[in-house]
Amino acid sequence: MTTRPIDPEIQAIRDLLASRPRPAELAERRRRLDALGGSYPLPGDIRVEPTSVQGVPAEWTEAPGADASRVLLYLHGGGYCAGSLASHRPMVAEAGRQAGLRTLALDYRLAPEYPFPAALEDALAGYRHLLESGFAPGRIAIGGDSAGGGLTAATLLAIRDQGLPMPGCAWLVSPWVDLESASASMKSKAATDPMVQKVYLLEIAALYRGAAGARTPLVSPLHADLHGLPPLLIQVGSAETLLDEGVAFAGKAGAAEVAVTLEIWPDMIHVWHLFHPQLAAGRRAIAKAGAFTREHLAD
Amino acid sequence: MTTRPIDPEIQAIRDLLASRPRPAELAERRRRLDALGGSYPLPGDIRVEPTSVQGVPAEWTEAPGADASRVLLYLHGGGYCAGSLASHRPMVAEAGRQAGLRTLALDYRLAPEYPFPAALEDALAGYRHLLESGFAPGRIAIGGDSAGGGLTAATLLAIRDQGLPMPGCAWLVSPWVDLESASASMKSKAATDPMVQKVYLLEIAALYRGAAGARTPLVSPLHADLHGLPPLLIQVGSAETLLDEGVAFAGKAGAAEVAVTLEIWPDMIHVWHLFHPQLAAGRRAIAKAGAFTREHLAD
Repeated sequence: MTTRPIDPEIQAIRDLLASRPRPAELAERRRRLDALGGSYPLPGDIRVEPTSVQGVPAEWTEAPGADASRVLLYLHGGGYCAGSLASHRPMVAEAGRQAGLRTLALDYRLAPEYPFPAALEDALAGYRHLLESGFAPGRIAIGGDSAGGGLTAATLLAIRDQGLPMPGCAWLVSPWVDLESASASMKSKAATDPMVQKVYLLEIAALYRGAAGARTPLVSPLHADLHGLPPLLIQVGSAETLLDEGVAFAGKAGAAEVAVTLEIWPDMIHVWHLFHPQLAAGRRAIAKAGAFTREHLAD
Repeated sequence: MTTRPIDPEIQAIRDLLASRPRPAELAERRRRLDALGGSYPLPGDIRVEPTSVQGVPAEWTEAPGADASRVLLYLHGGGYCAGSLASHRPMVAEAGRQAGLRTLALDYRLAPEYPFPAALEDALAGYRHLLESGFAPGRIAIGGDSAGGGLTAATLLAIRDQGLPMPGCAWLVSPWVDLESASASMKSKAATDPMVQKVYLLEIAALYRGAAGARTPLVSPLHADLHGLPPLLIQVGSAETLLDEGVAFAGKAGAAEVAVTLEIWPDMIHVWHLFHPQLAAGRRAIAKAGAFTREHLAD
């Protein structure tokens, strides 16, 4: 193995995270993730507009110059048990800026209070709301990170299975698509991933899936028939335990005739985009996603 | 499985190829691959300049406006037993145009007359020649398709292991990186791949590797330590038997901290770029590679 320097920005973040083990209590986990989003001031040119979709809190964000006829429906991460509009607001707003469109982020219901399929129902309601509001399906992108990436995939499957028109493209960041956590990188990347370990994943998977089996396709899209999905951009970090399931999902989607772009980012950890105000690689990854979205949404 | 229409341009090519089984005789195989390149007239604005590198025939191509300080070293496919400057000239010239640089294509020695490591020695000599000619390593890209994609990977490994400076990036089209052909798509994609079947691959693998084992890292880069490679763009078709080894190689390189972009193109077959004059998806794939190369080479 060649010895090479690691990007000092991500090294500092990895060190900080490694020094702060995840709290045992769920309420404290939620507070900490929300605090991460709150720790970065939102750029002053971002317009935020609270709304709701069938009782689900949501919000629009918009940077100057956004094409109001295009929208990114965003599904945050947090293991289906944490995360919120607050935790991901800076990342979502920046994604909208880079893609040149509006964003609608959903505060979908969380487990264990609301297990599967509550989050999926809310995500699907959000998509239907956009269609009913007059957005052309080809001008809608769906995106999400971690659990929100898995939920993005499940939402696409539900859209297909219900005969709704597909969105123009989708963006999956470090997607959690195998709730069995059966891939080799759970072990091979355990030492370099300061955030996501298998024991944690199995704990929250049980809270989310409730009575549903871990291989239920809408719970673990890695086990779904993936035919008919729109073009996908999948971004994963080389240092995260979810690396292999992202690669496997890309391969399986591609084999099912889905147009797939997979990016593997050296040294990066789970959803490094969250740290973009202090991480150039996070800004570059969001810019890549913006370019992908601009390219794949209809004019 | 959703029934969906296949791109009619690639369907016509798939039908034509399926109607013309590969000849048994090697000389005829070589003639046929060369004839494919010859069947497309080279655009009139491409300047072709024959040369040689340590006795290996080679040629420069250049489209108007090319940056003469940047170069793509190209290693053609053909199973290490066929292919030439003639077979790939239209594809290489178009790749140079899209990347905005000169190309140097190598007519490296072929098996069975010259088994491993003859082709690798020639490729490495070509890279050294570029360095000695004054090209900055960061302004050199290496690219190849099929066996040439595997040879590109092997060349990068040899560059690393000999302590030479790395090129700026590399481009691998439908790379053949597993000479055991052990991946699942050898079977799952056998029915949709009109060109490349496992029995054929094992036949030519034996001709190429000679006394070397099929898992020798420089013969099958899937089995190599991939640390230290430059950014890679890997493009594979969803309908080809080499799909899974391309995905596996992407995952393994990414896990080794290489910046990887993997594209899986629906309906496309082995090295669909060769048909680009009659295939829009071939032109789009070459344009993607051109953009990748422009982005990753040094200014």
